[in-house]
Amino acid sequence: MTYASPIDISSFTELEEKHDELSECVFALDIGGSLAKLAYQTTFRYKVCLPKQLPDPHSKRKMTVCGPFDFYDYREHEYEGHKLCFIKFETRFIEACLDFIRENIIPNVVNSHQKLVGRVTGGGAFKFLSTITTKLPGITIEREDEMESLVRGCAFLLRNIPDEVFTYDKRAEPAHIFLSSCMVDTYPFLLVNIGSGVSFLKVEAGGSYSRVGGTSLGGGTFWGIGALLSGDGPSFDTLLELADQGDHRKVDMLVRDIYGGAYESLGLAGDVIASSFGLAARRPDETRRPADLIKALLIAVSNNIGQLACLYARLNNVQRILFGGFFIRGHGLTMEVCSIKH
Amino acid sequence: MTYASPIDISSFTELEEKHDELSECVFALDIGGSLAKLAYQTTFRYKVCLPKQLPDPHSKRKMTVCGPFDFYDYREHEYEGHKLCFIKFETRFIEACLDFIRENIIPNVVNSHQKLVGRVTGGGAFKFLSTITTKLPGITIEREDEMESLVRGCAFLLRNIPDEVFTYDKRAEPAHIFLSSCMVDTYPFLLVNIGSGVSFLKVEAGGSYSRVGGTSLGGGTFWGIGALLSGDGPSFDTLLELADQGDHRKVDMLVRDIYGGAYESLGLAGDVIASSFGLAARRPDETRRPADLIKALLIAVSNNIGQLACLYARLNNVQRILFGGFFIRGHGLTMEVCSIKH
Repeated sequence: MTYASPIDISSFTELEEKHDELSECVFALDIGGSLAKLAYQTTFRYKVCLPKQLPDPHSKRKMTVCGPFDFYDYREHEYEGHKLCFIKFETRFIEACLDFIRENIIPNVVNSHQKLVGRVTGGGAFKFLSTITTKLPGITIEREDEMESLVRGCAFLLRNIPDEVFTYDKRAEPAHIFLSSCMVDTYPFLLVNIGSGVSFLKVEAGGSYSRVGGTSLGGGTFWGIGALLSGDGPSFDTLLELADQGDHRKVDMLVRDIYGGAYESLGLAGDVIASSFGLAARRPDETRRPADLIKALLIAVSNNIGQLACLYARLNNVQRILFGGFFIRGHGLTMEVCSIKH
Repeated sequence: MTYASPIDISSFTELEEKHDELSECVFALDIGGSLAKLAYQTTFRYKVCLPKQLPDPHSKRKMTVCGPFDFYDYREHEYEGHKLCFIKFETRFIEACLDFIRENIIPNVVNSHQKLVGRVTGGGAFKFLSTITTKLPGITIEREDEMESLVRGCAFLLRNIPDEVFTYDKRAEPAHIFLSSCMVDTYPFLLVNIGSGVSFLKVEAGGSYSRVGGTSLGGGTFWGIGALLSGDGPSFDTLLELADQGDHRKVDMLVRDIYGGAYESLGLAGDVIASSFGLAARRPDETRRPADLIKALLIAVSNNIGQLACLYARLNNVQRILFGGFFIRGHGLTMEVCSIKH
């Protein structure tokens, strides 16, 4: 299991408005094909020093002097904040995830008089329902629609979290440019949700959406073929590290491998990939490292997702594309290839 | 090297019209990334028995009686026919291909007073030009544009060869339905040329065309990753045979592997592939045969080509899609997955 940075949600009034006096949501869990993503809230307390209030001449209360000098006296005020925390588990270890909830999240819920609710989405909300209710007695499990949750979460991030959405351009300095308020009015956009497989959602103004397409060539394909090619049951991140060290030109057939140079009448440069893995059978005896294969694979999968995204965006008259999901991982090569102009 | 059925072109007047008195094209060669495809013409003679001409009472010539009986006498007439023959070689053995031309084709050219021409296209027409001219002295090499040749050849097949173009529907009886004259007016159509990589061409009425897209995930990808997964430097056809014996559900993550059943609100059936190769990393210890992997790979590549073809067709307002290229091979599974409704 690994951790993502928690988000301080103390100031999000839209969350408070939905607070229910009678029930409390203690966790939210998305159980996908490969990963289960868990979100829960923690409360923290912190002290802030504020200047001493000027004495009110009409008040009969005597001010308490806390500091050593009257002219910059302060008081310590204690505040309560809330953080949204994230953990992920591999779906095949779903029981460990449920144990974590039972042992670490539920005991911290203060008001046990409320009905405690766990919201669950993703395919595992159906597949593992009986396991979940058995492992978490006393918790009411409410199923949420996966795509609906995805779109609402995305809209929440766009409105509230300035350092979550960014554009990426390898040649720019910095390559990541975070988008804050300018993204609020980004509708309509194509949301490309890259999990084990990929869904393409057209999200309209107001948060309504439709699933306009999908592909089975996603993160699970990269991880799966990558594991078969490299052996040793590598983690996803190990594969990404390998990809960074590889030379895909040992494996991919470039336009210049066929033409000797560019295919000028079609405007195809010599280093364009004509056939992913096209040299593997044609030059079987060439020495290749696993890293070379994994890099070619990452490029093939990422590029294909980017191409399909671009086609679905054009077909649906959408100008902006947002890529999300665990596959991206802030990995430069992935983002570069996804967002190449098609 | 392997052979495709020759086509009897004796009756094709459009070829005769282009016959040049001063030069003769003795072969045409398309050198792609993986395969070199050679076409050449052979002359054959055959005899046909025709009924004896009735004697012309005004003629002074005496009829020769060839048969035993006067009332059904016949004469043997000798005719000359022409066949277009095809051979392919792996591009890495291009020298063997050129040797074949020098030893088997050129010696059969009757009229050596003409200028002998070889027409060459594909990337190898550029990459291997010096090898070709060295190996075939005395032959004038003329380069032709690859996409232009492809479209002209396709138009020729549609007009002239009834048993070359067919629709495929696994559930129909027969599954192949050959299209003859009904395809003459099929413009515009999307021509999907599946070689090592894939090109998508929009072909307009009159044979004008534009390349509207491409993908690097083509036949070279299937052959390349297939060779890496199965070992032993398999031929393309060996991989296709393996694919027919495999069970992709051991490797692919289906919707029901995630949901336990269908994802009904999205209309995704339980046996839809959610993630190609999605189980390979998630269930690393499961027993899988190479055939299972190769079948999953063939489905992934074919399905992706079909999906892209459908998207490019919709974007370009084209109703008909023709799939061609060595990748197809008349292979049922490939054709079925390519043409699934996307």
